[in-house]
Order: sequence, then structure tokens, then C-alpha cells
Amino acid sequence: MTASPSTTPSDHERGAELQVLTTDECYRLLATRQIGRLGVNAEHYPLIIPLNYAVDRDVIVMRMAPGTKLSAVQHANVAFEVDEIDQRTRSGWSVLVRGLAEEITPAHREELVTRTEGTGLTTWAPGEHGHWVRLIPQAISGRRIIPGQLPPAFEASAYL
Amino acid sequence: MTASPSTTPSDHERGAELQVLTTDECYRLLATRQIGRLGVNAEHYPLIIPLNYAVDRDVIVMRMAPGTKLSAVQHANVAFEVDEIDQRTRSGWSVLVRGLAEEITPAHREELVTRTEGTGLTTWAPGEHGHWVRLIPQAISGRRIIPGQLPPAFEASAYL
Repeated sequence: MTASPSTTPSDHERGAELQVLTTDECYRLLATRQIGRLGVNAEHYPLIIPLNYAVDRDVIVMRMAPGTKLSAVQHANVAFEVDEIDQRTRSGWSVLVRGLAEEITPAHREELVTRTEGTGLTTWAPGEHGHWVRLIPQAISGRRIIPGQLPPAFEASAYL
Repeated sequence: MTASPSTTPSDHERGAELQVLTTDECYRLLATRQIGRLGVNAEHYPLIIPLNYAVDRDVIVMRMAPGTKLSAVQHANVAFEVDEIDQRTRSGWSVLVRGLAEEITPAHREELVTRTEGTGLTTWAPGEHGHWVRLIPQAISGRRIIPGQLPPAFEASAYL
């Protein structure tokens, strides 16, 4: 069933293209999602924590529950990833932020507290998420996989 | 528009429920996706790397390009996350594996090499991904958010 004359199976999708995203495109895509994934060293592992977020200018705003993960993000190097994946076309994009996280407390400038809470961020998960965290990007990068063989724009059989 | 008599905005989705998944359910869900996210300490950050994966029994099989990230996973504590998120109903599930990663080389038992490559894992991204990595879980956990107010099963206006 392979279109290639090769006798070995393909190592990757034939003709797929990898695009490196510009910084502007990364920030634009970052603003399109509601759930991202925080990478933080806690409990001896580089944990990945899915959570709701909002964007305040270039800063990522999160709300966290009290506990070891919140303590671990405080003034720590962290990562934040968002993506959108299409399993059908085997394509998608991802954006990765590397940055420094900091919990916002009443000790911060009132304007900063107001702006952070002014994002109106709510969490899908029940439970207390009373701690507001700002993640200040130090670097942002992203890539997009464009499928090599696009499916037909309309495939009638898909709806039957 | 809020159904609550409270005058403050809701902190999270009203009535949403958080379910802790069993180990069996975590492994079952792990096998349903094609893209996961590897958490690994490299370049001074707990990076999050989206990649294709396959499952060999309880082990997660990945293919990586040579470089600093591959070096960083070798015999290191890593994490691996998969999820499925529905922005419309504000719900979804996520599974997080904590484990130890190891590159598979010809120095390994032939049966292990055969089984690893026998997963037939291919990568969507073009480029060389010639290094096979096995991630041996040490712990697995997962959770599911069930929306509090389910939308109607069929909402005619959504199609207009």
C-alpha cells in the first residue's frame, strides 16, 4: 500500500513539512487556547501540569491550588506549552515558552495585582485555586507540521 | 446570567466534577492517543516536547532526533503527559506518567530491540528520528473533569 518504491517502511509522514514559527506567530497562537501545560520541577520529576491560563500582554497568568507544585514554581525556571493537534491529518502546531514564574501576592504593586486578576481567569476544575501566578517569558518558540498529503476539503463519505 | 445568588464571579465551573482515574483507566487512555508530551530537564528548563509515541505493554516508546534533548533523557527522571481537552464543554482528561527513560541501542537484548521497533512507530515530523527511547513508568496518575452543566446532546442552532 506504500506509494514509495522503497522496501523499508517510511520513518515519517512522506512530504510533511516542519515550519518554525516566528515570535509574533507564537504569541498569537498562545492567545488562542484556554488550557496549557506547565512544566515544573517538583517531586523529583519535571512534571507536566495541564491548567487553565490567560494572557496579560506577554505574560501567562495561571491560578493554582496551594501545595508542593505551587511552591516549586515560585521564582523557578519553568516551561509552558500549548498545542493543537489534528490526529486525522497528522498535523498540528505547538508553542513552548521558557520563563520564570512568580506568585502574585498583596506585597506586589496594586496595579500588577489588579491587572492579573483582571484577566478574569477561571478554572474548569473544581476546588480552590486561589493563588495567582505570573509566568514571564524569557524565550518562546514554536513549530507547525503541515501534512504532506492533504485530504480532500470535502469528503462526503465522512458524513455517512 | 449567573444561576448563583452570589454577587462575586465564580472561581471555577459551577458543578464541574473532578474524577481521579484508576491505574487501569490511565493505561487504557494512554493507548488511545498518538501524540504525547515528554517532560525532560534540558537547557536549564523542565522542557515540554510534543512527540509521537507508541505503547509496548506498559512502556512508552518514542523516537527522537540526536541532540541535547536525547542526551538529557538518557537514564533521567522524566514525565510524559497525554490529554484530551474539549474547549466547548470545558472538560477533558489527562494522564501523567513519571518514569525513567533509556535509549535503546544494539547493546540491548535483541528481543527488546525487536519489540521496541516492532511497535511500528512513525513520526509526523520530517527529519531524522533514528533514536528509539523507552520510558519505563514508575508512577501513573490521571484525572478527568466532568462538566457541571452538560450542553444538549443535539443543539440545532450549532449547525445553522
